[in-house]
Amino acid sequence: MLNIKSEQIHELEKQYRISLINSLIGFRSLNLLGTTSNDGISNLCIISSAFHLGANPPLIGLVIRPEREHNDTLRNIKSTGQYTLNNVLPEWYMQAHQTSASYPSGVSEFDTCGFHKQYVKDFKAPFVGESNIRIGLELREIIDIEINGTTIVIGEIMHILTDDDLIAADGTVDHGKSKTMTVAGLDTYYLPQPVGQLAYAKPGVAPHLSSLQH
Amino acid sequence: MLNIKSEQIHELEKQYRISLINSLIGFRSLNLLGTTSNDGISNLCIISSAFHLGANPPLIGLVIRPEREHNDTLRNIKSTGQYTLNNVLPEWYMQAHQTSASYPSGVSEFDTCGFHKQYVKDFKAPFVGESNIRIGLELREIIDIEINGTTIVIGEIMHILTDDDLIAADGTVDHGKSKTMTVAGLDTYYLPQPVGQLAYAKPGVAPHLSSLQH
Repeated sequence: MLNIKSEQIHELEKQYRISLINSLIGFRSLNLLGTTSNDGISNLCIISSAFHLGANPPLIGLVIRPEREHNDTLRNIKSTGQYTLNNVLPEWYMQAHQTSASYPSGVSEFDTCGFHKQYVKDFKAPFVGESNIRIGLELREIIDIEINGTTIVIGEIMHILTDDDLIAADGTVDHGKSKTMTVAGLDTYYLPQPVGQLAYAKPGVAPHLSSLQH
Repeated sequence: MLNIKSEQIHELEKQYRISLINSLIGFRSLNLLGTTSNDGISNLCIISSAFHLGANPPLIGLVIRPEREHNDTLRNIKSTGQYTLNNVLPEWYMQAHQTSASYPSGVSEFDTCGFHKQYVKDFKAPFVGESNIRIGLELREIIDIEINGTTIVIGEIMHILTDDDLIAADGTVDHGKSKTMTVAGLDTYYLPQPVGQLAYAKPGVAPHLSSLQH
């Protein structure tokens, strides 16, 4: 067994270290983050840092890196207070990955990478027409992380755009049926296959499959 | 197309809303979180809230809910300053799910759910012997989220315990080969299949597979 220690991590070649550290925690939530500027210029970038923060109120967190290419996104979120998260599907995951390229500020990745903007009434941020699970969020809190200059953005879910048959009877989104993809590390894309839905765990009761299997 | 709006989300039946909101962002990083008290009582719980915060320094964030069953974990992290994240494998994912049951404080889920504790020199928190990708972390920052009473815990990676052949030439952990599982929502477990590793995206260059395929 290998034990890579702190001192050794710091000495790793930069790109190797970035790939290693980014992939350590396993599969990550994969979404296209849609925003617009106050001038109406849309922006789209792929992110794998969204995390569930709570169901009541319904909150999602995400991490924005300090690098230049993401500044449009953070500026748009701060100035309009709205943004969208949209799942990534196998038919066009390569175009979704392409949104991570450093396009000049003012160039819309919707156009460059071939996505359709979709809007709902009284909500400024564009959704991705090609996705089948889309979330509209309103900014609630921005936390600056001093230790590395990243920003945690917390938003409340205002809209859920999806198809009726992608939500199971118990409320769980069926990401298997939706064909939602996931990513490990920076660039390795995966399509998950369902193994089992388990019943609520209780002390003294052996773990078992849920009766809600879908 | 369905548009579930904010007002409707608030009116959903509680358990349905929890399942829906928890599953919205897609697949999540799945890990067993290992800690120990200062008295040497170990604790293990399954979490799906870990997120990558940055590679230099190597930081991981996670969300701890305010509910009672997780207090041992947060108390242990605060008092010892150390904790571990360990990936979940198909052979024993049901036992991993069972660690989410509300065992009384002082009962070790390592023993109750059938996991072996593994230690490294000068590091107090126990790793999971059954995992094949294990991360040892030291607490760097605790952020209390006022909006819903959750806690974001930020830690720096001090140890990476894995097998040499699970890290690809470019540094990316091969979670396909490792058989790392993922979860959507609270209880639906999946095993991802690799689709493709893509090259670093550049403006004006069509997206394509990486030459580093593994």
